[in-house]
Amino acid sequence: MAKIGFDIGGTNIAAGLVSDDGVLLKKGSLPFPQDKDFEKVLATCEQLVTALEEGESEPVEKIGVAVPGSIDATATVVLNAYNLGFHNTALKAALEERLHKKVYLINDADAAVLAEHRVGSLKGCTTAFMITLGTGLGGGLILNNTLFRGGRNNGSEPGHMILVNGGRPCTCGNEGCAEAYCAATRLVRDGKVYGWNTAKAVIDAAKAGDEYATTIINAYVDDIGSYIASIINLLDPERIAIGGGVSAAGDFLMNPIRENVARKTFFAEPTEIVVATAGNDAGIYGAAFVTE
Amino acid sequence: MAKIGFDIGGTNIAAGLVSDDGVLLKKGSLPFPQDKDFEKVLATCEQLVTALEEGESEPVEKIGVAVPGSIDATATVVLNAYNLGFHNTALKAALEERLHKKVYLINDADAAVLAEHRVGSLKGCTTAFMITLGTGLGGGLILNNTLFRGGRNNGSEPGHMILVNGGRPCTCGNEGCAEAYCAATRLVRDGKVYGWNTAKAVIDAAKAGDEYATTIINAYVDDIGSYIASIINLLDPERIAIGGGVSAAGDFLMNPIRENVARKTFFAEPTEIVVATAGNDAGIYGAAFVTE
Repeated sequence: MAKIGFDIGGTNIAAGLVSDDGVLLKKGSLPFPQDKDFEKVLATCEQLVTALEEGESEPVEKIGVAVPGSIDATATVVLNAYNLGFHNTALKAALEERLHKKVYLINDADAAVLAEHRVGSLKGCTTAFMITLGTGLGGGLILNNTLFRGGRNNGSEPGHMILVNGGRPCTCGNEGCAEAYCAATRLVRDGKVYGWNTAKAVIDAAKAGDEYATTIINAYVDDIGSYIASIINLLDPERIAIGGGVSAAGDFLMNPIRENVARKTFFAEPTEIVVATAGNDAGIYGAAFVTE
Repeated sequence: MAKIGFDIGGTNIAAGLVSDDGVLLKKGSLPFPQDKDFEKVLATCEQLVTALEEGESEPVEKIGVAVPGSIDATATVVLNAYNLGFHNTALKAALEERLHKKVYLINDADAAVLAEHRVGSLKGCTTAFMITLGTGLGGGLILNNTLFRGGRNNGSEPGHMILVNGGRPCTCGNEGCAEAYCAATRLVRDGKVYGWNTAKAVIDAAKAGDEYATTIINAYVDDIGSYIASIINLLDPERIAIGGGVSAAGDFLMNPIRENVARKTFFAEPTEIVVATAGNDAGIYGAAFVTE
């Protein structure tokens, strides 16, 4: 039985019909209601389901929904999804009532990890880790061949592991979180001093041999290297995937990161470090797979 | 069927007979051969087995052996156990040939975690973490209700997660490892400046209100707090146990650590932080349980 995966973002709600064998058969996307009105959100979801079911021989029974925010341990309530205006929102019940289908919720970072494991670079791994380096540092773990949703089902916040205790302030209120050092935002902040306003601008300047940009990139690589080495020394995973804008720099960043990690880890076989491949539809895929 | 657990240390080899229901029935201990001669080590183990089997109605079939060092992924060879003079030592095969029993190897830190889970403070936990704060920082994870031995069976080195990237040198060659900040040794190093030569002396001085000792302890608590918060934010465990000499300070250290961690973690329910209780026989217990 095919299922539908929703990837709800602050700009668009994307949805796709995913077959039993994990193929994205068709997809659609509609704007997220600008006034964040919850009734309109539900109506938009209904429109997308209707469009995706059009012409299908049987109705879809299960829907997975990825949201950019925290979900309670019973996976029924969105605790906080600031970009969507969801706060203690009983999204599962509301969608089930509206759509007359079984609904499953998943955090968007977890959805990305699940998609990467099922159709991306972590396929076949029993123990793996994925980080997405963008505005923040999101990610998650594959343990025992399945997505790990936290020992008490509260999820995982790997961006708030502390990498430099007492260091740079993090948006969460702590000091020295990995997110404050490894997210792409860090490159923007460090680059601004020299007039570069995006992470890509800093990376491009370093590629062109600029000395200051190279210093920034070297420090960035060392922080990512230490962060990944910490995960490897704790969990001895088979593979680590890096996604997000920064990973688009490819081997220019990946090779120094691999070398940096190799110096800081203990186990004889190096853990593979790869670029994530599930791509833009990862949220849809991950949401669809959480229904299984 | 009862089993025997060995706890091989650089000073003594301890062994105990453990019943099916996890009770330590009797135990013995003999000095580790001073010249580290491997034949003598095997002979000492044999003596202990003979002594433990004396008067038992049936011979023991399985023996677990905890060693302070790294073990290969197939759990047959001790890669390095510096205190024992073991390097690429095929301990499993050597003991099986000598004792005519099935032998299982386990790292001593893992044995401590397994014991804590079965007979100590982590009993009943599905997801938990234990650290031992002594000369170094050892520890390990309970995942899915069992000891986690690494994604590729290489074990876990939680002492070499990086807590202050670019910080204090660690004995492993990296900079800023948790071990360099959270082991009891750190208190000794910081205390020496003021004439305190043991971790206990610094703790006692802080208890008596000494200002310098209090400053040292506060910084120590903040580092342990950040380390534990990192583990919680990644894994959302039910409980964390702290063992080793430092934990003997009890609530004087445990309460500030709990408060520090609570400020740095995300999940609504606090993860319990407790003192380890499996005690001095943890190595014997853990070694016995690894045979199951």
